[in-house]
Amino acid sequence: MADLDLAPSALTDGGTWRFPTSEPLRLDSGGVIEGLEVAYQTYGRLNADRSNAVLVCHALTGDQHVASPHPVTGKPGWWLRLVGPGKPLDPERHFIICSNVIGGCMGSTGPASINPATGKPWALSFPVITIADMVRAQAMLVSALEVETLFAVVGGSMGGMQVQQWAVDYPERLASAVIIASASRHSAQNIAFHEVGRQAIMADPDWRGGAYADHGTRPEKGLAVARMAAHITYLSEPALQRKFGRELQRDGLSWGFDADFQVESYLRHQGASFVDRFDANSYLYITRAMDYFDIAASHGGVLASAFTRARHMRFCVLSFTSDWLYPTTENRHIVRALTAAGCRVAFVEIESDKGHDAFLLDEPVMDAALTGFLGSVERERGLA
Amino acid sequence: MADLDLAPSALTDGGTWRFPTSEPLRLDSGGVIEGLEVAYQTYGRLNADRSNAVLVCHALTGDQHVASPHPVTGKPGWWLRLVGPGKPLDPERHFIICSNVIGGCMGSTGPASINPATGKPWALSFPVITIADMVRAQAMLVSALEVETLFAVVGGSMGGMQVQQWAVDYPERLASAVIIASASRHSAQNIAFHEVGRQAIMADPDWRGGAYADHGTRPEKGLAVARMAAHITYLSEPALQRKFGRELQRDGLSWGFDADFQVESYLRHQGASFVDRFDANSYLYITRAMDYFDIAASHGGVLASAFTRARHMRFCVLSFTSDWLYPTTENRHIVRALTAAGCRVAFVEIESDKGHDAFLLDEPVMDAALTGFLGSVERERGLA
Repeated sequence: MADLDLAPSALTDGGTWRFPTSEPLRLDSGGVIEGLEVAYQTYGRLNADRSNAVLVCHALTGDQHVASPHPVTGKPGWWLRLVGPGKPLDPERHFIICSNVIGGCMGSTGPASINPATGKPWALSFPVITIADMVRAQAMLVSALEVETLFAVVGGSMGGMQVQQWAVDYPERLASAVIIASASRHSAQNIAFHEVGRQAIMADPDWRGGAYADHGTRPEKGLAVARMAAHITYLSEPALQRKFGRELQRDGLSWGFDADFQVESYLRHQGASFVDRFDANSYLYITRAMDYFDIAASHGGVLASAFTRARHMRFCVLSFTSDWLYPTTENRHIVRALTAAGCRVAFVEIESDKGHDAFLLDEPVMDAALTGFLGSVERERGLA
Repeated sequence: MADLDLAPSALTDGGTWRFPTSEPLRLDSGGVIEGLEVAYQTYGRLNADRSNAVLVCHALTGDQHVASPHPVTGKPGWWLRLVGPGKPLDPERHFIICSNVIGGCMGSTGPASINPATGKPWALSFPVITIADMVRAQAMLVSALEVETLFAVVGGSMGGMQVQQWAVDYPERLASAVIIASASRHSAQNIAFHEVGRQAIMADPDWRGGAYADHGTRPEKGLAVARMAAHITYLSEPALQRKFGRELQRDGLSWGFDADFQVESYLRHQGASFVDRFDANSYLYITRAMDYFDIAASHGGVLASAFTRARHMRFCVLSFTSDWLYPTTENRHIVRALTAAGCRVAFVEIESDKGHDAFLLDEPVMDAALTGFLGSVERERGLA
């Protein structure tokens, strides 16, 4: 698939945008981040009237390399299914922007960044951030790229949370929004799974209170366990059964604690490969931002009230039948609130046994829904 | 509830049965355990014709204290709901036996026991055991107590696995069997969650390759993380939402990594209290036995073939609608096989939002089903 990766944008090949200290990021916690850096990629060209820009928002462990190879793993872009020639997001027609969230570890300011005030990594002195803080930094980047209005904001999972937050905080800068396999607030079960991951990381003595960079260690075992637990939640039980069942790694049982079953080996691989590309403190901060996410809470407990300024926008909400992390019920909750707020919403529940990860995988119904929805918005906006 | 705990049996108050080395336990792995010890409790009296004995089989982290206080925690017996005066299992009528599984840590031979050959704890030199090995040890105990035939074998979760294994290996010694919230083989998702728990334990440097007893350490952090991950699977998403939702521990968010949400605090408590009463290596061995469990595999892949010798027996299978660890589909699979084998089976799916843990909780429909089923078997056997 690597040959499908896109060439960098002709306008800008992305990189890291460094904001002057005169333009700090103001956080929900009350803190500020001065000298904010936002790492991003773009694909395609901004058109003459600057009306074809699309922002893609990534999920918990995603990054800005939506359609270009990952610099560490060399793996192809994570959403080549949706971004590319002839795809729903097409660099021939769209100017596609994707940035690493703040708190992340792929170039945007996060706990592994150097705190300019101390000259040392922030580690746990990094302020706790929210989804709204991530979106505020994205809005600063989009302005810096001289884009006033986005044709669409698109994202799955935590990306879908950012899309909702955009519609709440910056509706005047948006024409449409695509929310995939997401939720308007984290459920108790979602918080519980995240807490297990955080405890696994913090239980690793190599974590050293978060200051592992100072000690030359990395809490790799804890982070791997966190990833393994999370990974189970990304797949459905039927998908695990279909892919692995009780198939063994070798002929016969080991009568020990090696990976006897293929599903064990698969999970161990998921854990081991994750630690090569992800920072443990970033995992703490981003999961925390997701747990804190609750749009209705800051709007009198009524989700629809949050979207009243987004009535001019068009929305597309997609869910997958076997997704038990962000199930259809959670997505339908968003659809109801958008409808109650007077927004126009397309909602498609897609039959799939692939679980939450379906949004990253081969789901032709998702492609067709997005092509149809975005094409309709383009025609309405005179873009097509 | 502690005052409901039962007085020890008048016949025997339980304790630890020490088998002579001339009576070793032969294991599925090919190994043997010499000097086997089985810790057990009994309640009620064996009647004159020795026909009223019931064996209760415990789940992964259970023990023999089904209806008497736990010696470490002081908490009441774990199944006082079902065992007691006027309950489905009544010491006025039944002679109730419950033993700690081998591999466990409440007195039966397990990895924390002293290996007589070396004078040191077995640790990882303890042989990997199976559910059938656990049952073989129980059968030895039942014989030692001079009970030839059991009126019933009863168990939930891993206890239900043992019940099935009894029906496969010792049908001639059983009149009836009650299987609650169980499965005839571990699914890929179940194996995956267990593997996360094992990796969490083995990632803890205090585990020391299993030889923590020699080093005076205990892998408490790893075991706590394992318990936290497992505990989520014992509850349903709706139960977590109902019990905790997004309720906070204090007014407002901490903007840090303390337990902000009640569900986090609850999980941390579950992890922390578990390590006081459970041995980490036992957790490895018992989860492994569950993962290896697959009755059909040793019967040509046809589950019904395993039960053909059990046609004289009566079975009761119970499942809970919100149990996603051992869902109704898995229990129905057992019912189908038993029916195909020509056994008489009662099957009740109980509406509950409590998840897998429902079998340990207040579920009047479960009590009624067991009372009815066991009463019917008693009348058929001339016991009532």
